Amino acid sequence: MAESEPRPSGMPTNRVEALSDGVFAIAMTVLVLGIQVPDGGGADALSARLLSLWPKFASYALSFVMLGVLWIGHHFQFQYIRRTDRALLWWNLIFLLAVTFLPFATGVLGNYPRTRLAAVLYGSTVFVAGVCLLAHWTHATKKRELVTPDLDDTVIASMRLRITAGLAITGVGTALGLIDTRPSVALFVVLPFVYLVRSRIDTHVARRK
Amino acid sequence: MAESEPRPSGMPTNRVEALSDGVFAIAMTVLVLGIQVPDGGGADALSARLLSLWPKFASYALSFVMLGVLWIGHHFQFQYIRRTDRALLWWNLIFLLAVTFLPFATGVLGNYPRTRLAAVLYGSTVFVAGVCLLAHWTHATKKRELVTPDLDDTVIASMRLRITAGLAITGVGTALGLIDTRPSVALFVVLPFVYLVRSRIDTHVARRK
Amino acid sequence: MAESEPRPSGMPTNRVEALSDGVFAIAMTVLVLGIQVPDGGGADALSARLLSLWPKFASYALSFVMLGVLWIGHHFQFQYIRRTDRALLWWNLIFLLAVTFLPFATGVLGNYPRTRLAAVLYGSTVFVAGVCLLAHWTHATKKRELVTPDLDDTVIASMRLRITAGLAITGVGTALGLIDTRPSVALFVVLPFVYLVRSRIDTHVARRK
Amino acid sequence: MAESEPRPSGMPTNRVEALSDGVFAIAMTVLVLGIQVPDGGGADALSARLLSLWPKFASYALSFVMLGVLWIGHHFQFQYIRRTDRALLWWNLIFLLAVTFLPFATGVLGNYPRTRLAAVLYGSTVFVAGVCLLAHWTHATKKRELVTPDLDDTVIASMRLRITAGLAITGVGTALGLIDTRPSVALFVVLPFVYLVRSRIDTHVARRK
Repeated sequence: MAESEPRPSGMPTNRVEALSDGVFAIAMTVLVLGIQVPDGGGADALSARLLSLWPKFASYALSFVMLGVLWIGHHFQFQYIRRTDRALLWWNLIFLLAVTFLPFATGVLGNYPRTRLAAVLYGSTVFVAGVCLLAHWTHATKKRELVTPDLDDTVIASMRLRITAGLAITGVGTALGLIDTRPSVALFVVLPFVYLVRSRIDTHVARRK
Repeated sequence: MAESEPRPSGMPTNRVEALSDGVFAIAMTVLVLGIQVPDGGGADALSARLLSLWPKFASYALSFVMLGVLWIGHHFQFQYIRRTDRALLWWNLIFLLAVTFLPFATGVLGNYPRTRLAAVLYGSTVFVAGVCLLAHWTHATKKRELVTPDLDDTVIASMRLRITAGLAITGVGTALGLIDTRPSVALFVVLPFVYLVRSRIDTHVARRK
Repeated sequence: MAESEPRPSGMPTNRVEALSDGVFAIAMTVLVLGIQVPDGGGADALSARLLSLWPKFASYALSFVMLGVLWIGHHFQFQYIRRTDRALLWWNLIFLLAVTFLPFATGVLGNYPRTRLAAVLYGSTVFVAGVCLLAHWTHATKKRELVTPDLDDTVIASMRLRITAGLAITGVGTALGLIDTRPSVALFVVLPFVYLVRSRIDTHVARRK
Repeated sequence: MAESEPRPSGMPTNRVEALSDGVFAIAMTVLVLGIQVPDGGGADALSARLLSLWPKFASYALSFVMLGVLWIGHHFQFQYIRRTDRALLWWNLIFLLAVTFLPFATGVLGNYPRTRLAAVLYGSTVFVAGVCLLAHWTHATKKRELVTPDLDDTVIASMRLRITAGLAITGVGTALGLIDTRPSVALFVVLPFVYLVRSRIDTHVARRK
């Protein structure tokens, strides 16, 4: 937070980041609250119940990683966004609205792992979050007043490309959910791995003081 | 947090902001926990249940946006408030008490969307939060010791006007709730749009270093 | 966080404060989650149910204010504590353990408002939190290495006196709970008002740069 | 956050720490939400129910302390880690995934205190968290680019040793859980006390400016 570059004027972003980190931390933690802790019966009952919960564990782990991907995207954006305005605050809030809805969509997918509507609801939630992230980036970088001076066009484009790629995968996954849940969920599982690939942003960020 | 203006003496505000951001983040996220995830039955059951949940989704989205409005107001105040005293800490805590009550009032409104008492309870909660925000601002700006030197009277008055306008709308909405829930809830929906309008505060903040 | 006084060596306190603020924010917000949102029936059912919930609302408001008192005490201590060691981390963690238990004790008091055991459990929880706060302050100020140089003996004694006064009231309230819940709860309600009184600490903090 | 040493280049760690503190704060607080507040009946019913809840209280306290141990380990690492990269972000996220799972494992252990599967599930969760912490430290210190220059090999080795010791105890405890729950849980209870011992890290951190 102590920056070496000259500080741009306007509203600092620290509280936007704090609110967002809080929402992500809670969304990540309440995912598991949606899984009811087995109770009653002996050892056999427990192992049977834990086994029967596997779709819920799977959708919890999937959503945790999905939230991780969204959080990292948000985090990288704020490496360059140094001030905020009312419009950016609202794009961020709508983004967070989608983030808070994900535990609900996760619960639905965990309860109805083979129902197409559940896959579509899940995919749509991630898609909306991605759209907000893209709008947030586009608005922030439009006039260059809200970002650091060292942000060049290749980094702007690289971030835009990464979000768009994610949107494409999520969009196809959601559309497939209208036909069959299996390929749909498979694509959601693939999505985070795409983001393990290093990009121009990593290199740029790594070089910054 | 690294300020360019000379730092006033007294208690810094960073932890007040951290506690408040935490409360807002959690209140925003637990809103959705109040909506029970459908379970059991097949695809038809799921779509029927999701449809029947629409008043809950609507009140969740409404409250999320309402919390966003309150958070932005709180956030703008702390652009100028640089130290705090015991009285300000307590006004902030009572404000947060109203914020934590909103998920409960939201749940009631979601369960009883056509009951006047639910609309009145909801409106009263938002009204109390607004009153605390106004008292917080009034106390902070009364003696000028707690705020930054660049805060001029027009900004003080502009913030006061914005909060008062919101209180007027919320007050009328709550009173209408005594007669009919529909116009009451309609006014609560309108409220956030009022705050999309830029004001003197935005311009003032945007110019600051 | 940018301090004007020379920074003492050792582990900074920012993350201890962040963790504590997080725990307080969540404890404050989950208090209301313990109150079940009424569901079913018409307008008459709603008003009857809300009325019957009044002991829960009362214990929720009481605990929120109690958490506020504890948070302010913690906050004032960290105005002077500038570094931390392993022992201080653990005193803080045990303090937070009591804080996280308060929502449970609050739920019990809300469900059994006239049962002596509930009042004793509630009082004991607050008492343990107070003892930890005192131990935390005593350890931090013992060797003067962990605190800012401007902390003088009158402020150390004033803080100790304030916590001890709170412990005395809580202790008497808890003991009274063994006989009758009414005077016990009455003392818990009185407690926060004691802390509205300004003390030497307020004056000292207000003068600091 | 205002560092005296020259700031290394790359992504700052403040938001990683904020997200992690948030997840820990919530995990610590929701532990108690897993214990249902008794309701109905008179004073006798309350005391009987509270007594019957003792395995849940015990597993809640155990997990709180366990989270404290993990948080302190994480906290100490970030005394030296000053920048982060994509790989480190992901190690941290998987670590947090295990942290968010602990309240579930705690609930299972509280409901099935004498079932071996519950002890194994609990121990495995702590073990996975420890492995991630070790991987996080190993990755961060591998190339020395992500850490402060004053971090010497003895401190790196000391931290590695402490985590490995914890892993050994947890591993043995988990394995014992396959045979009998009592020695298994006993080892989990012993674990935090091992971390009360001061080490080279404490001394090193205490000397830093």
